[in-house]
Amino acid sequence: MRISELSDRSGVPVATIKYYLRERLLPPGEALNARESSYGEEHLARLRLIRGLVHVVGVTIVQVRQVLSIIDDPHISPLAAMAEATAALPATADGGGDRASADGHRAHAVLTQLGYRFDPLSPLVRELDTALEFAESVGIDTDDEQIRAYGTAAHRIASADFARIPWGDTREATAFAVLGTALYEPVLLALRRLAHNSLALERDQARDEADPVTPRNVAGH
Amino acid sequence: MRISELSDRSGVPVATIKYYLRERLLPPGEALNARESSYGEEHLARLRLIRGLVHVVGVTIVQVRQVLSIIDDPHISPLAAMAEATAALPATADGGGDRASADGHRAHAVLTQLGYRFDPLSPLVRELDTALEFAESVGIDTDDEQIRAYGTAAHRIASADFARIPWGDTREATAFAVLGTALYEPVLLALRRLAHNSLALERDQARDEADPVTPRNVAGH
Repeated sequence: MRISELSDRSGVPVATIKYYLRERLLPPGEALNARESSYGEEHLARLRLIRGLVHVVGVTIVQVRQVLSIIDDPHISPLAAMAEATAALPATADGGGDRASADGHRAHAVLTQLGYRFDPLSPLVRELDTALEFAESVGIDTDDEQIRAYGTAAHRIASADFARIPWGDTREATAFAVLGTALYEPVLLALRRLAHNSLALERDQARDEADPVTPRNVAGH
Repeated sequence: MRISELSDRSGVPVATIKYYLRERLLPPGEALNARESSYGEEHLARLRLIRGLVHVVGVTIVQVRQVLSIIDDPHISPLAAMAEATAALPATADGGGDRASADGHRAHAVLTQLGYRFDPLSPLVRELDTALEFAESVGIDTDDEQIRAYGTAAHRIASADFARIPWGDTREATAFAVLGTALYEPVLLALRRLAHNSLALERDQARDEADPVTPRNVAGH
């Protein structure tokens, strides 16, 4: 296909595609003549991957290149590639500023309680620790029951994610895992907030049925 | 307590406390003399709330003031306050740039499938729609089974959150709900990534036991 069709089908502007070609994030097409090249399905797949990464990783081409080089490495297993590429994604927590001293102690206890296997040196362990400590420091601490609810739910979600990874193709499996890790995060967060709303609507209705006289927006409940 | 102790116990610098006092986000203390005031536990609780909001909502004092004014409104029910305050929090998804045309169709179908109650006009519905469409557009689309796994997990998490809200005190319930909504998001995301790692470590070990000769970092699996 010509670059204009590649642009239409990928949703990436022609000027941006040319930039990716210059930066060698996208391999060159087959030259048709001095001014035109032809591109295949593999270019489309690659463009979608880059587009997902730019959206996820942010705007720095350096980071995108870093993740792509992990995915492209022919000597790496999908699992090792996933671990490295996920570590190169932006952190899930920004560290809470003044609580950056987290030593991982709280996260270790939580992960052990949940029965997760983990690498104690993983930056994710420190991120979890920081998030837990910050919530505690502003008075919204967790208890064991809540941690169990979160941990069990996260594990079920991760199992559903893993069930869909195309393990047969190393590069495709890695790309799928890296993009899926990051692109489903907003889905999960939106669903949690919508589940809060759903529970609130149920609670509101139950209260209206129990006490049909009191208007909904008056305090005192 | 003096302002220095308030600073020590809240983790908020004295200069920042003085700024919050000038901006009237924090009520004045009891004057001890022309230069010193005394502060109580209610100041400490308020400071922790502001600190959580600044961390969550970002750096704009305008947004923090907006959420505080909802929480402080004596004529609002906790559920109404929660809905308004949550709507004032930053979005969970940034919209994926070029897919901002989401009409909510996909999200409606998903929420109906999950049995969630929802307000079709809620910005969260559009956020969910955008997140789903963007994942699809880069080739990482969801299927029914995965949506069910995510939706069930999110509902269980929301139920665990609701079980801990102190419903008896309107203001406290609202503050707790708003901060909990936002502060546990990084906890959940970190746990999901750690669950991925845990599953990967299990898979790696199972493979090593089945095939002890093949080194782990060589491709071809």
